This record gives sequence, structure tokens and C-alpha cells, in this order.
Amino acid sequence: MLKNMEYKQVIIVRTDIKISKGKLAVQVAHAAVSAAFEAYKKKREWFLEWWATGQKKIVVKGGDEKDLLKYAEIAKKKDLPVAIIKDAGLTELPPNTLTAVGIGPGPSRKIDEITGDLKLL
Amino acid sequence: MLKNMEYKQVIIVRTDIKISKGKLAVQVAHAAVSAAFEAYKKKREWFLEWWATGQKKIVVKGGDEKDLLKYAEIAKKKDLPVAIIKDAGLTELPPNTLTAVGIGPGPSRKIDEITGDLKLL
Repeated sequence: MLKNMEYKQVIIVRTDIKISKGKLAVQVAHAAVSAAFEAYKKKREWFLEWWATGQKKIVVKGGDEKDLLKYAEIAKKKDLPVAIIKDAGLTELPPNTLTAVGIGPGPSRKIDEITGDLKLL
Repeated sequence: MLKNMEYKQVIIVRTDIKISKGKLAVQVAHAAVSAAFEAYKKKREWFLEWWATGQKKIVVKGGDEKDLLKYAEIAKKKDLPVAIIKDAGLTELPPNTLTAVGIGPGPSRKIDEITGDLKLL
């Protein structure tokens, strides 16, 4: 196991749609849970390191649907755990609206190559 | 397996502390992930039903620290998965501030007995 490596999970949210504080929190939670289980199943070592070191999570602003899909695609190519969240659209949003993308847990350095320039929400 | 039973996860947040939208989303995500893995380990049947039916999540307003601890205690007594989230306090909050409580996934009816009267965030 590599030592001295930091692990984190980054959740990217859209900034071009209007969404309430509570609904946003739910979308972020969906992305966090789905990507965490993806890691648990396919990248157990990363998951366990992340779990043992405080489960660092960061929420960042990612632009529109196209932007978020681009980040998701790059993350998949880098073999990182990825979750793409779409909302059922029962309340605030049209059905099937992409709302958030979860990346990781994985090595911070690897994730920063994708999301390092995005601003914190 | 019981049929026609709905499952959900409820995340209760404090309403007596000031917290930014992004930080709140992170706290809710911490609670969602921790309580989901608690269920995965100890209540696999509930977890799998919840996972298969859209992973319903609700964020509600719960009052102060004492209120949140009370809900957590009742949920534990009912044998529901519970996660109590405290913030490291590196940025907006004093260290060790309780920020959120995650309950479930579990049967909606069982959780509603505890949080049914709380308002959506």
C-alpha cells in the first residue's frame, strides 16, 4: 500500500440550474453514496484508506451538463470511481436532469488533475 | 422479504448554526455515506431494497445539537442505522461541532415515527 498518499472524494455540481439548498444537498449526497460504493466494490484499497483518514469530501462548481459529463468521462478513463446523478424531476427540475457527478474516493493527486481548477461551492 | 414497504434515508441538519451551502452539502453527504455503510453492514436487506428502489434521501431541519442527539438515540433504540457527524472545524465551525445525523436506510414507516414531523430543508 502506498504511504503518504492523500485520498478524497470530489462532488461536482451544476451551476447553470436553479436548485434549493435542500435539494442540492440531496443531489450531493446521492453522488457521494453512489461513488463511495463504486469505490468499495472496485477500488477497495482506495476506499479503505479514504475511510480511515476522515473521508475527505469536497463540493465544487462544474458548469453545465456538458461540462459535468466531460469531467465524468475523463475520470472514467483514469479508472477512478464515478457516479453520474440524474434527478427524477418530481419537484424542482425537469425529469432526468443531470445534477451532480461524484468522483472518488481516490488518490487526491489523480483527482486534482481533473477537478483541481474548479472552485469550491 | 416484506413487499410494498418503502425505504428511505433521512438526514437531519442543525438549524441553530450558520453554515454555507457547500459546507452543508458536505455534512449531509458525510451523514448519508456513513449511515448507508452502517446499513450495508448491519441491515443488508434494508440497504438492498433501498438501493434497488431509487435510494430515497430526505434532508430535514432538526434544531440544535441536543435535539439531533435525541433523534439519534431514539433511532438507535429502534435498531435503525445511525451516523452522527461532527465537523473537524478547520474552517467555518468550532472543532467537533455536531452538524448532522443520518438515519437509515430503513423502512419509511419506522423512520417517520422519529422524523415525520420535521420540516424539509
